[in-house]
Amino acid sequence: MISHPAYRVEPWSLPENGLNLDLLAQSESVFALSNGHVGWRGNLDEGEPHGLPGSYLNGVHELHPLPYAEAGYGYPASGQSTIDITNGKVIRLLVDDEPFDLRYGRLGQHERVLDFKTGLLHRSVEWTSPAGRTVRIRCTRLVSFVQRSVAAISYTVEPLGSPVRVVLQSELVANEQLPETDGDPRSAAALESPLVAEESFARAGRLRLIHRTARSGLRIAAAADHVVRGPAHTVLSSESSDDLSRLTVSARLEPGQQLHVEKFVAHGWSGVRSLPALKDQADAALAAATSTTWDGLCGEQAEYLARFWAGADVEVDGDPEIQQAVRFALFHVLQAGARAEERAIPAKGLTGPGYDGHCFWDTETFVLSVLTYTAPQAVAQALRWRYATLPAARDRAKQLGLAGAAFPWRTINGAECSSYWPAGTAAFHINADIADAVVRYTAATDDGAFDRDVGLPLLVETARLWRTLGHHDADGAFHIDGVTGPDEYSALSSDNTYTNLMAQRNLEAAADAVTRHPPQADLLDVNDEECAAWRRAAQRMTVSHSRELAMPEQSAHSTRRQRWDFTATGPEQYPLMLHFPYFDLYRKQVLKQADLVLALHLRGDAFSHGDKARAFAYYEALTVRDSSLSACTQAVLAAETCHLALAYDYLGESAMMDLSDLEHNTRDGLHIAALAGTWTALVAGFGGMRDHDGVFSFAPRLPEALSRLAFTVRIRDRSLRVEITGETVVYALTSGAPLEIQHYGLPLEVSLTSPRSEAVPPAPPGLPEPDQPPGRRPARRSRDAASAPS
Amino acid sequence: MISHPAYRVEPWSLPENGLNLDLLAQSESVFALSNGHVGWRGNLDEGEPHGLPGSYLNGVHELHPLPYAEAGYGYPASGQSTIDITNGKVIRLLVDDEPFDLRYGRLGQHERVLDFKTGLLHRSVEWTSPAGRTVRIRCTRLVSFVQRSVAAISYTVEPLGSPVRVVLQSELVANEQLPETDGDPRSAAALESPLVAEESFARAGRLRLIHRTARSGLRIAAAADHVVRGPAHTVLSSESSDDLSRLTVSARLEPGQQLHVEKFVAHGWSGVRSLPALKDQADAALAAATSTTWDGLCGEQAEYLARFWAGADVEVDGDPEIQQAVRFALFHVLQAGARAEERAIPAKGLTGPGYDGHCFWDTETFVLSVLTYTAPQAVAQALRWRYATLPAARDRAKQLGLAGAAFPWRTINGAECSSYWPAGTAAFHINADIADAVVRYTAATDDGAFDRDVGLPLLVETARLWRTLGHHDADGAFHIDGVTGPDEYSALSSDNTYTNLMAQRNLEAAADAVTRHPPQADLLDVNDEECAAWRRAAQRMTVSHSRELAMPEQSAHSTRRQRWDFTATGPEQYPLMLHFPYFDLYRKQVLKQADLVLALHLRGDAFSHGDKARAFAYYEALTVRDSSLSACTQAVLAAETCHLALAYDYLGESAMMDLSDLEHNTRDGLHIAALAGTWTALVAGFGGMRDHDGVFSFAPRLPEALSRLAFTVRIRDRSLRVEITGETVVYALTSGAPLEIQHYGLPLEVSLTSPRSEAVPPAPPGLPEPDQPPGRRPARRSRDAASAPS
Repeated sequence: MISHPAYRVEPWSLPENGLNLDLLAQSESVFALSNGHVGWRGNLDEGEPHGLPGSYLNGVHELHPLPYAEAGYGYPASGQSTIDITNGKVIRLLVDDEPFDLRYGRLGQHERVLDFKTGLLHRSVEWTSPAGRTVRIRCTRLVSFVQRSVAAISYTVEPLGSPVRVVLQSELVANEQLPETDGDPRSAAALESPLVAEESFARAGRLRLIHRTARSGLRIAAAADHVVRGPAHTVLSSESSDDLSRLTVSARLEPGQQLHVEKFVAHGWSGVRSLPALKDQADAALAAATSTTWDGLCGEQAEYLARFWAGADVEVDGDPEIQQAVRFALFHVLQAGARAEERAIPAKGLTGPGYDGHCFWDTETFVLSVLTYTAPQAVAQALRWRYATLPAARDRAKQLGLAGAAFPWRTINGAECSSYWPAGTAAFHINADIADAVVRYTAATDDGAFDRDVGLPLLVETARLWRTLGHHDADGAFHIDGVTGPDEYSALSSDNTYTNLMAQRNLEAAADAVTRHPPQADLLDVNDEECAAWRRAAQRMTVSHSRELAMPEQSAHSTRRQRWDFTATGPEQYPLMLHFPYFDLYRKQVLKQADLVLALHLRGDAFSHGDKARAFAYYEALTVRDSSLSACTQAVLAAETCHLALAYDYLGESAMMDLSDLEHNTRDGLHIAALAGTWTALVAGFGGMRDHDGVFSFAPRLPEALSRLAFTVRIRDRSLRVEITGETVVYALTSGAPLEIQHYGLPLEVSLTSPRSEAVPPAPPGLPEPDQPPGRRPARRSRDAASAPS
Repeated sequence: MISHPAYRVEPWSLPENGLNLDLLAQSESVFALSNGHVGWRGNLDEGEPHGLPGSYLNGVHELHPLPYAEAGYGYPASGQSTIDITNGKVIRLLVDDEPFDLRYGRLGQHERVLDFKTGLLHRSVEWTSPAGRTVRIRCTRLVSFVQRSVAAISYTVEPLGSPVRVVLQSELVANEQLPETDGDPRSAAALESPLVAEESFARAGRLRLIHRTARSGLRIAAAADHVVRGPAHTVLSSESSDDLSRLTVSARLEPGQQLHVEKFVAHGWSGVRSLPALKDQADAALAAATSTTWDGLCGEQAEYLARFWAGADVEVDGDPEIQQAVRFALFHVLQAGARAEERAIPAKGLTGPGYDGHCFWDTETFVLSVLTYTAPQAVAQALRWRYATLPAARDRAKQLGLAGAAFPWRTINGAECSSYWPAGTAAFHINADIADAVVRYTAATDDGAFDRDVGLPLLVETARLWRTLGHHDADGAFHIDGVTGPDEYSALSSDNTYTNLMAQRNLEAAADAVTRHPPQADLLDVNDEECAAWRRAAQRMTVSHSRELAMPEQSAHSTRRQRWDFTATGPEQYPLMLHFPYFDLYRKQVLKQADLVLALHLRGDAFSHGDKARAFAYYEALTVRDSSLSACTQAVLAAETCHLALAYDYLGESAMMDLSDLEHNTRDGLHIAALAGTWTALVAGFGGMRDHDGVFSFAPRLPEALSRLAFTVRIRDRSLRVEITGETVVYALTSGAPLEIQHYGLPLEVSLTSPRSEAVPPAPPGLPEPDQPPGRRPARRSRDAASAPS
């Protein structure tokens, strides 16, 4: 079992065991609060010590030149990086004449608890100053799901033992000094003190700072207001300068007396609105929050989450750690997307600066596939953001000599800022991933307006891309040459099976959508010839196949390449990309992450069971999982091919990615896609849920360790609850009209009044468990595993 | 016919027609003087106007960081750039009170003539100042082949019409301001004023400047001395500061009187020697030059060139322009390599700053293949430089996870500084190209000491590389996957035929060399198993073949890729790399330059005549010649496959590359490899010379336009003269012991006393001339061509 002593196992919360300053940066990511618009890392209230201070507004970024020693046509010139916005979290404390700082004095008690039901982060501390004064602090923080610009803190300090004089400084701080990074010096230069002061204000408990970014020209505002309760003679004062606006509260507290502060913070930004307009926007949001009151905000938050959990919860019996982890995962996935509203969902959500705050394909493929069935409105919003960036994607396609739209590999504002084209521009599958998210969302929601206004143009423009990216050979077969699939240890291959099959779905879906919406298709200049060409390309799409191995292969001729010499590769040489050149990784058989196996999942309708079993086993032996985007997919295919213990191990790896910091970079932010993968490993893996062609099918089967798995998914305005025990599965509709589903291929109608109980067929006789590369087997989670941990 | 009105056609010189300031930068390259150690661009003596001031010392470079927006393992961190050394060319002139500047006043006459026999650059000018004073200037410049540190100028000014007061300023100038470039701003920053002054000196006619580079830590010295002859009352004074050392000569000249200055300049540099040592070195070189006298230097120069031409001249009857161009080419190829002496021969020689002064594979493949038969001592020196860089190449191989040595794609000091790995690191063929140059030189010279001390280690270490870079498949076939061949519009392909066949020769040659030198091989730890493995890899080397097309193909499966849409590509979209992304070029069938066709030439022993004819025709239709390294190879194969008119057109393109500035970048320096290709097109093309396995064979055949072609090649200390007329070829030895050669496959012994006259067999019935991509046919040179120019 993987252990994570930093946190205690609870079903509905994540309590921290004490405070380990060495893990501070990691815990700041784990305890980050966000609603997809505003993000606050879990920094200590007093500001320091910190790992990485972090406050973010989705979409706020600065530009910087992308350097090339040897430039090339079509290389993006400008990079984008997320930047720290004004920090509204800071409440500093002076105890008598000593600053409250956990690096000094004596820490009697420290606990933080993230509550998945209430959406609140609680903290309680007992601390004795070097001079021997003891205080207790209780503090709760939220970032509101309901009021998207608003975050708030409730802060209470009281003396234990002897009276103390306390001074609280509640601040808005801009241009905080960040720890040094090892990145490109020019990027760093551009991002140091990125904010230019425009206005600062402080009067009584009201604070405000307005800044502007130098190059991207975005204006950001932060405003705060306070409710203060303390003994008589509690004194308030406030002041402001360019990068600091501060309320100071001073009181003398006798034992039994408390100083209590409620801090309401509103954040806002705009690329177009004037300073007065943005100031008003922040003040208005603040007024709404203060009038709601602290208790009101907490109530809204709990209600919002109750609705979410009612349609999204996953119950796991037999593994309390997984139970906790999947709720932690769903909570953070919701936080990343809930209120992003026509902005990207970055790879790290708003939990840290990793990957420069960029959004990649994993949003559509790993995150939206979960939100589609748990918080579908967030999916519509995320895809509306893609739709809003269509002009940039069309320009990019044109620049590349292609028709339609070429969406960026990594971006904040919609323009490509990937500087390494073999794993950027060439990874065209992102376009099919977006199309797939459209298809999935549309099938799961019947959202006709979205289908017509957003889905159709996205499908049409991506289909146009594929038509010009690929070509029919002399025999009529359609090929897509020289592109990069999901696996980042392979590149520039021909007929990448994942890419081709996802493009196939994209092409067909576009033609179907045109049929559904002829007038809107006309506006996009789609004609019959074009639709026919899409269908022909889809029908004649090449699927790479190895005759020798009698199975599909990752790309044309790829199984003939030299295999990576795993026996000569030491454990310290992982991740391979930090120890071997790309040229060597690319030309040999070694996978960073699931590639064909992802096709076996998402396009499972294109393969026989035998193909899946053979190909899964083959690629298991080549996949090193240097990417966090792999374990969940391997879990799904391991489950489908009846390697249930192995699937359970992969579930564990995906679930513990951040809680156990398996990749040693949780400090930079959570792996939102891997977190989402926890749900996928359970629901698509052990639940066997698939959604090909608008058919929702299940083929559940539990590993021995789990006695029960129950999950609820939202499908077409219904809530379907699936509860699996050893030999039985019960499908029950908890809301909405009757729904047709499939159970192991058999059609089944479920309605509010008639839950269906079905037998789980016995597992077929077990094939031998596939091997992984030496030393790369996932940690053994299953108690009943055949072999011991390696 | 291509016309180049800038120059008049003469057999042994290049006279310029007047002065066109718009072509100034180009003419500076064309009139550059060099001996391979010191290089002076053909800048006007008075310094300005200039296109690019340029004075170079082979090996002198500055370092600068190579920027990467997304870094990767094994990416070189440091770049190298050639820098301008102290300019010793400048002699400014004041006529009465007006500076002599061709942009003002009236130019009566201006002629520059580069003389290939004497190695002198002559200039004569008649100029009338804005105030109406007319002067005549006669000036001659040389960079000595015999005294490698030395350059010299003879400068004479006289009044025409009325008396004038003239002031001459003869200077050494460091850190000259360069025209702005569009490169990376950091590179530019590093290279602006790269020299740090260490010493300056001026006394009477003696001048000296010593500087040091800031990062590479190289010390450079320039010293000058003067002989002045003028009327009575000619006054001399001199002065110096950090970056300027200057002699001023002032005189009043009556009509018929002259002021004459001889300026001797010595350049030196060292990465290890102290300031006093380097100062002494420059002073000593200067003392030798002044004691030789101007006339003595000119005499030495002419003698050196007479010896060169005796063993290297090419005579062409029927095309005076080609006659001039091939001597121009040989002169510059000699200038690039003559005295490089354990330094690289850069792609531009020492004629300009293009490609940052880097050396690439074209040195071994295109330049050394000419020098081997015309100035073999230069080849030994160039390969000794590669040998001296073996430690860096071994380190690079180790970093890349390979055995042996991995030579850099581009470098000055031996360390890789290519920042774009798909067309840098992955182009491993450079290692086989170096090995091929070793094999060719050894076979052509019987230089046993070189073979043992330099050739053996180079062959062994490159063979070791290939063994680890490739692999045997299950059937035993040896494959080299994921590398880049010569064509820069293809990349990362498997079993690139050129690479594989050159590696095959490399592996065999290494095993052979070990057999010749067992004790030295022992010192390199070569054992029998290793040799056997090399031979097995060579024997089982894969040669990619298209069954459908019944011919060899560029790399595995490459002929199945989509063909570039040439009809949709406008003339303004060439070169393609400036208008299309690499991803699109790489995945389609389109060639920047000969790739398989180069294999058909250099490894012609591996192909049947039918293979050659089919493959040449196939790749003609795909090759756009956006590289200057292509036309000469296409000429050779066109000749071999009896497309003689086409071969003649390609000869014309290679020959006129710089004289007609076909690629519009002659300003940055000459295309030394394309110049060398002029010789190759004539000797290997129409002469049909090949040198496989130490057999020197000829298969001559002339295009209709040429009535006679005669060339002399040096082979094993002999000079072999080959004279081809329409139906006859005469092989005559002009020095040395009898030599076995082949004429159309038949062995033939030639000796001093018995020249052999052989018949040229009639050309077989002509195949149809192959097509080139639309608009990319070479300019029609042949008067008898079937079709008119396109």
